[in-house]
Amino acid sequence: MAIDRSTAATATPLAFLPKSKLPAAVAWGGDAVRYVDQRELPTEVRVVSARTVEELVAAIASLGVRGAPCIGIFGAYGVALLRRTILDDVAFATAAARLRAARPTAVNLAWAVDRVLAADDMLAEAEAIHREQEAVDAAIARYGLELIPERARIITHCHTGALATGALGTALGVILAAHRAGKQPTVFIDETRPLLQGSRLTELELREAGVDAVVQVDGAAAFVMLRQNVDLVIVGADRVARNGDTANKIGTYSLAVLAAHHGIPFYVAAPRSSFDLATESGADIPIEQRDPDEITTIRGTRVAQAQARVFNPAFDVTPHRLVTAFITERGVLRPPYGESIR
Amino acid sequence: MAIDRSTAATATPLAFLPKSKLPAAVAWGGDAVRYVDQRELPTEVRVVSARTVEELVAAIASLGVRGAPCIGIFGAYGVALLRRTILDDVAFATAAARLRAARPTAVNLAWAVDRVLAADDMLAEAEAIHREQEAVDAAIARYGLELIPERARIITHCHTGALATGALGTALGVILAAHRAGKQPTVFIDETRPLLQGSRLTELELREAGVDAVVQVDGAAAFVMLRQNVDLVIVGADRVARNGDTANKIGTYSLAVLAAHHGIPFYVAAPRSSFDLATESGADIPIEQRDPDEITTIRGTRVAQAQARVFNPAFDVTPHRLVTAFITERGVLRPPYGESIR
Repeated sequence: MAIDRSTAATATPLAFLPKSKLPAAVAWGGDAVRYVDQRELPTEVRVVSARTVEELVAAIASLGVRGAPCIGIFGAYGVALLRRTILDDVAFATAAARLRAARPTAVNLAWAVDRVLAADDMLAEAEAIHREQEAVDAAIARYGLELIPERARIITHCHTGALATGALGTALGVILAAHRAGKQPTVFIDETRPLLQGSRLTELELREAGVDAVVQVDGAAAFVMLRQNVDLVIVGADRVARNGDTANKIGTYSLAVLAAHHGIPFYVAAPRSSFDLATESGADIPIEQRDPDEITTIRGTRVAQAQARVFNPAFDVTPHRLVTAFITERGVLRPPYGESIR
Repeated sequence: MAIDRSTAATATPLAFLPKSKLPAAVAWGGDAVRYVDQRELPTEVRVVSARTVEELVAAIASLGVRGAPCIGIFGAYGVALLRRTILDDVAFATAAARLRAARPTAVNLAWAVDRVLAADDMLAEAEAIHREQEAVDAAIARYGLELIPERARIITHCHTGALATGALGTALGVILAAHRAGKQPTVFIDETRPLLQGSRLTELELREAGVDAVVQVDGAAAFVMLRQNVDLVIVGADRVARNGDTANKIGTYSLAVLAAHHGIPFYVAAPRSSFDLATESGADIPIEQRDPDEITTIRGTRVAQAQARVFNPAFDVTPHRLVTAFITERGVLRPPYGESIR
């Protein structure tokens, strides 16, 4: 189980392999904002053009566009588009406010809309927001790349790719960088119940990028560590507390315990914006319980009786002592996290 | 996480609470063999009467009846029924041979059919086979009961109940015995991907029996151990090697590691017939890879692209050092298993 391969890879180029064949998650289209409709994935990869405020709002509200950074970029381009198509100032302000409120819990959306509204050249500002996200993801990938051995065998969980951030992705960005640098990673993807982001999104992104990837049920991760010579686990984060405790998709804590048991490093790739210095530890993070239907039905098909009781936490909290390192756009953070995170 | 409740429960009665409202998995019906059609579960609980050799064979071949002991009991009653309805000896022998071959991999089926064929009173022999299974399951439940504290909080995986054994069940039998003895267990059921036996079958059996039970995704087990004060894990076994290494549904090994990490006992309930003394250790158990469609589709609904590569082992192997004890019909086996199993 020991990693006996060199991790010195600072000189490898970042992109000598072709990029993904998938269309961009979000893009400026001149007279529209283009996006991949995520509700159709993975059965269909469909690029949709949103031209009116109704179409922009519907794309966000229906979860056609999802992932906090991705929604922010979409909203930014959306405002720039509306400014070009709605000449009346009052009508434009009303439309921008509707777009800003399309998904109240998405703080990135309101932040991005406000930033674009305050700019003289709105399209340039939207493009700047997109470029900044790309720069953050690229920096995470560059720092993370050095932690990935040649021919690394990796387990990842949930989805942390382009369809979520609108750029390279976080944990998936590190894997894609390793692939483009010719390190030939093999990735075991947890399907990630209940919402199956692993089998629906991560599998698609990795395969389209040419990465060697296989999907497994979440319960198989331990056995894969034992029998498949896994080198490392890498995941994203919803929120990191000041002490390094990490909230992420349900199943992450399990992976962290299993990695520790098998002597495998457990990495968390997350931008600085995910670190919440106002939260002291994981004990201060409330656990959201989600709809039981996510477990009793799968994409509309019933798999348990409707009367079944369900325990469906949206995420879990991994104690900081199980995290080998955090990979951020400013560098790799090691314990003690109380200091390195500050 | 420590268990501070009494485990002394030898004097508690086994059955002062009402039994399950579910119909029997298999039963003699006079002019038919009755069974619960497991393909319809959990959406519909339908009792079917098989009267002809065609209906008996179809019930087994279509997986309407499943679970090795359950198939054996069904086959035993089936032969007894055919002897009553087919007067011609040659025609009867042909029909019995067809029934015996309905599912070639089910060794219990051939064994039970042969045993009934060799008996003078075929129905009495079939009933004896059924009663013997009930006695085995009851003995496992009785020994297991003593390991279950009052108000125990339990995690279980897959399905080990009446629908599989035709009697009380193994791990589920222990839980049901604890419930009937008034110990008021709470059970967290792993849904058990890929085939969801936990949410489809275990949930149904426990709820119909009045047990406090909730379903969770497999990835939630670790977080449930950490935050929900879990007392123990109990599972069944497909096959136990001479040294105690245990093959069981994929996800079992993960649970065992997580239980060890949290200081929680990990019990395996299995009849003597599951102990394979010819297999020295888990390394000698070949791992069957199952159909990728089990992961890329769920009950006919596509959840990953058809081109997705899949790693789908049917079961995993838990090293004996992670098993706190085996619960058998002859008593509770403790380490060192090399001795106790022999």
